[in-house]
Amino acid sequence: MKLVQCVPNFSEGRDSAVIDEIVRTLDGHNVTVIDVSPDPDHHRTDVTFIGELADVRDAAMDMAIAAFELIDMREHTGEHPRMGAIDVVPFVPVRSVEMAECVELAREFAAVFADRTAVPTYLYEEAALSDDRRNLADVRRGEFEGLRDAIGEDPDRAPDFGPEHIHETAGATAVGARFFLVAFNVNLATDDNDIANEISRAVRHSSGGYRHVKAMGFELSDRGIVQVSMNMTDFRYTPLFRVFDTIKQEAARHGVEVIGSEIVGPLPMAALIDVADHYLRLEDFDETQVLEHHLVGVGS
Amino acid sequence: MKLVQCVPNFSEGRDSAVIDEIVRTLDGHNVTVIDVSPDPDHHRTDVTFIGELADVRDAAMDMAIAAFELIDMREHTGEHPRMGAIDVVPFVPVRSVEMAECVELAREFAAVFADRTAVPTYLYEEAALSDDRRNLADVRRGEFEGLRDAIGEDPDRAPDFGPEHIHETAGATAVGARFFLVAFNVNLATDDNDIANEISRAVRHSSGGYRHVKAMGFELSDRGIVQVSMNMTDFRYTPLFRVFDTIKQEAARHGVEVIGSEIVGPLPMAALIDVADHYLRLEDFDETQVLEHHLVGVGS
Repeated sequence: MKLVQCVPNFSEGRDSAVIDEIVRTLDGHNVTVIDVSPDPDHHRTDVTFIGELADVRDAAMDMAIAAFELIDMREHTGEHPRMGAIDVVPFVPVRSVEMAECVELAREFAAVFADRTAVPTYLYEEAALSDDRRNLADVRRGEFEGLRDAIGEDPDRAPDFGPEHIHETAGATAVGARFFLVAFNVNLATDDNDIANEISRAVRHSSGGYRHVKAMGFELSDRGIVQVSMNMTDFRYTPLFRVFDTIKQEAARHGVEVIGSEIVGPLPMAALIDVADHYLRLEDFDETQVLEHHLVGVGS
Repeated sequence: MKLVQCVPNFSEGRDSAVIDEIVRTLDGHNVTVIDVSPDPDHHRTDVTFIGELADVRDAAMDMAIAAFELIDMREHTGEHPRMGAIDVVPFVPVRSVEMAECVELAREFAAVFADRTAVPTYLYEEAALSDDRRNLADVRRGEFEGLRDAIGEDPDRAPDFGPEHIHETAGATAVGARFFLVAFNVNLATDDNDIANEISRAVRHSSGGYRHVKAMGFELSDRGIVQVSMNMTDFRYTPLFRVFDTIKQEAARHGVEVIGSEIVGPLPMAALIDVADHYLRLEDFDETQVLEHHLVGVGS
């Protein structure tokens, strides 16, 4: 069974009637909804669902069309960067699926979506057609308002599919393929965010750290502590335990204790099995030994 | 979904035609077969399958009746203690099932099985009707041959269900309910089995250690090392990480390194999540964050 996850983000996080109408488009499909997270401050909702490749493709299209029809970007404000009604549609391989299949899925999806809606559509991350489109932040630069001006004038901003002008109400959309992203935060027994930032620089890729880590210091002011807030972009090659242990060592250098960690949102079983495997020094452990491995089905 | 595991052990580990015929009885049921392990030396096969409570009950009955019909204990020899054709039938709660439900299931199963076959049937572990029947080794004392003589003469050996004499060909059967048993071995960088035995005594319940650990030293002669070989009988209360860390400490006392560990056979995801949770010092992690938690189904 080729299992794919999709995490569409659409630009409505306040009006529950609209959110419900968009999410309900999944009801007719054989997919399992893992999470629906509306954020009023971001004015944005992230939906996570999973299923067989073709089911996920069809469900994502219905959801994207609904968001396209129901959201007007001209009235949209929110803290999170965004450029479209259906802002991003990433496809993530989960089980028995190669990244190449998710890339193909994303490109096919983007072409069909742009054709049906006349929304300019960009490919990003693994699905990108050029390196300068891999990073979503580059694709989304200027957001809805900035892109509206740039898209027809700057050839570098031309979409991969669809017309070379913004859609008046639905903006633009990014469709991608990426590996599973784990939100992993490590909490430090200090209120000094300089320490969290210094440790973040030590572990993150952009400043010389681990290849599949994005990190920044973050204050948890209600608890009077700080955390190294991370996105682990490929736990297969940069596992959680290694980064955790490095942070512990770096923190000790500052005389600070690691008091805990958090995993925010969903993650595949394999990411935690890797952790147990490492600390227990397991020999020849196979994921098929985990009972639940044999019980994976999808839908009702 | 009330998920139950059943691990019937029957007394045929050599004749693959007989083994296949017994295992094929599961085909007509909506259960997932996790493992079939015939052991020629033990002359015994362990089968592990899982499914909804009623499906598991019916599948186990078909398998038990087949073993009852096909195996003749008068011709059986093997290294493993045994008293019957269908030797033991343990029911194990896996998900959304209380132990009390598995106890009830075991008692109902034992009554029906004894009634259909005239095989004297004993309840053990959590399903036992008295404390002296909890331990399977006590129930099976003397094995097939010894029980044949004792069963009619010693009132303490009277079965819980069925006649007070052994079944001529099928012997006697034990039906039980127990928690999930994890086979967990920790390997030491020494060939001195006295050290493995001393550490085993430190961690096992019977000599003052952790409540849900059975342990003994075991030589891995081909590797020139020894191991602390354990059954973890309830990882919810005696977790793997705690016992592992205790063994590391005890080994250090002997100047010996822990070089690895093994988990033999299946275990529930929760046992490994506990390990990851501990070493990463996770705050508020919930098993529902694991993707596969949402994908559990049974059958084809």
